[in-house]
Amino acid sequence: MKLATYRDGSRDGQLVVVSRDLSTAHYATGIATRLQQVLDDWNFLSPQLQDLYVTLNQGKARHAFAFEPRQCMAPLPRAYQWADGSAYLPHLERVRRARGATLPPSATTDPLMYQGGSDDFLGPCDDAWFGSPSWGIDFEAELAVITGDVAMGADAAQGLDGIRLLLLANDWSLRELVPAELAKGFGFVQSKPATAFGPVAVTPDELGEAWQHGRVHGTLQSSVNGRKVGLNDAGPEMQFHFGELIAHLAKTRNVRAGSIIGSGTVSNQDAAKGFGCIVERRAVEAVELGAPATPYLAIGDTVRLEMTGRDGLSVFGAIVQRVSGPQADAPADADGDDDTPPPDGTD
Amino acid sequence: MKLATYRDGSRDGQLVVVSRDLSTAHYATGIATRLQQVLDDWNFLSPQLQDLYVTLNQGKARHAFAFEPRQCMAPLPRAYQWADGSAYLPHLERVRRARGATLPPSATTDPLMYQGGSDDFLGPCDDAWFGSPSWGIDFEAELAVITGDVAMGADAAQGLDGIRLLLLANDWSLRELVPAELAKGFGFVQSKPATAFGPVAVTPDELGEAWQHGRVHGTLQSSVNGRKVGLNDAGPEMQFHFGELIAHLAKTRNVRAGSIIGSGTVSNQDAAKGFGCIVERRAVEAVELGAPATPYLAIGDTVRLEMTGRDGLSVFGAIVQRVSGPQADAPADADGDDDTPPPDGTD
Repeated sequence: MKLATYRDGSRDGQLVVVSRDLSTAHYATGIATRLQQVLDDWNFLSPQLQDLYVTLNQGKARHAFAFEPRQCMAPLPRAYQWADGSAYLPHLERVRRARGATLPPSATTDPLMYQGGSDDFLGPCDDAWFGSPSWGIDFEAELAVITGDVAMGADAAQGLDGIRLLLLANDWSLRELVPAELAKGFGFVQSKPATAFGPVAVTPDELGEAWQHGRVHGTLQSSVNGRKVGLNDAGPEMQFHFGELIAHLAKTRNVRAGSIIGSGTVSNQDAAKGFGCIVERRAVEAVELGAPATPYLAIGDTVRLEMTGRDGLSVFGAIVQRVSGPQADAPADADGDDDTPPPDGTD
Repeated sequence: MKLATYRDGSRDGQLVVVSRDLSTAHYATGIATRLQQVLDDWNFLSPQLQDLYVTLNQGKARHAFAFEPRQCMAPLPRAYQWADGSAYLPHLERVRRARGATLPPSATTDPLMYQGGSDDFLGPCDDAWFGSPSWGIDFEAELAVITGDVAMGADAAQGLDGIRLLLLANDWSLRELVPAELAKGFGFVQSKPATAFGPVAVTPDELGEAWQHGRVHGTLQSSVNGRKVGLNDAGPEMQFHFGELIAHLAKTRNVRAGSIIGSGTVSNQDAAKGFGCIVERRAVEAVELGAPATPYLAIGDTVRLEMTGRDGLSVFGAIVQRVSGPQADAPADADGDDDTPPPDGTD
């Protein structure tokens, strides 16, 4: 089944069931109002949602309406955990090669993963607001899973068993802020702003044969301003499958229902397939041309990410986001802070 | 006022209001059932809780009962964000000196902060379970704040304005797993297991003059197995106050209601005051004696953290946790994973 969260003015939105072809939707009212509620009580609530999904696909749901991705928040507008792996080694290799570094020998056995902020996700069509265009604004085309409860010490098979839903992610990254945070060793706080997620989260059975052993075998299409940037195969080059990423996270702690685990930027060794982010293209240019030629994103650019199935239908719906923010750097004040107005008020 | 969350078998527990002297409590039923709900709607709900608090302190609350910290979950048993600063430079200096490193010049102007897991916190009296005693089990005595909504780009004053509640934290750390994760640069995933929080979260006004400009001026007492380890002054040596830590986090993203921001291990230049963790003591021993003498924690050890006010009353209640887990390393299986049984089942 496919689930989405409709904007209703509340922090957590309203849960809707979406038809397989993403044409119609139906409020899950009477079953559950929020997706986290379903994840907290999956075995009881998900069969009821599945029944509604079947009825909706048959065109028999009484109060169905046209599905509008622009009404969507992230499927979980806020979550208790967002841990993002970096499971595609070509992404790491390129980025490191550009700065003269190589992958450590452990790269094939020990996943890289960072803990990200999960209190404020962006919806699939939300503008992404950045305080300065000089921060090196970049997207990252990723797949992600939402888990049920996975106990501390779980192995990769138990990790796989814990997967409830799959979805698309755009892990916005501020490349010019990355080096200083990497050097500190404490992970990414300022260089990884709010992540966006695709309109629908889908159960693994929806992928059919494309879901194999914790990997999604399909092509992730990335474009900027309508021009293709990447057509990347998400399957065979995922060094660590989602079950392994979950096991890595669960080594010393329980992973609780509603945790979102990301794949990292989908990437292929074959550069002809393009890239799921700008920084990889710049890294390839740096090696081939002597310097990067492609600029990072500018205010007003639009990023689009989507994966279509063998039937030609969009699996997860599309992420379509406009980069927004001040056109030029605002003058810094006395303490060096950026005083540009925030995009969203406090309570 | 002082708020706590009582265990009731649910994931989020039941909100209770606790008397100033921590002797009695009262369910907040009729106002709010969960603390996150109050943080989401603070201006409307907190005055009602304050009224109940006043009545409770006067001994006039009809259904008051004896407050029992052992019934407490963490005030937020799960949260949308846990970002832990490292605001006390003596802690950093000692740990780095022990491995032959020094603080970078930016240490006094750019806070260290890591994003931690927030899906599964421990209550103040919960056993802390670790899969192996060889991981270098250590506690970290910290203060933390819970925020309301703070907008992206907020400055330190706006960060201070966003503080709703203060509480104690024990940021469990696995020292032997830290170096490998620091080297990866992506922050702490396995070396920072579930954090524990003190029984009550308190509004800043409860601290009176001890709350000044985003710092808590009071002594944090740490002990292991009843022996004092530290009597550390939390006030003057906090290099970055809580408003500054929040502003650091908010530079590129909104900080949403219910975010918890930690101070890092409370630490003083004067080693005679002792330490809020084991690793600092070991670092001092390494310099003075040539090698660390104090072992990390062993299975069965008990850690106790508490801060008392000028009136001699416990401000936040005490964290009292027993270290639990297997006495010796379980044999590793073929893929090197630890197969010790998890402390908590899946759904």
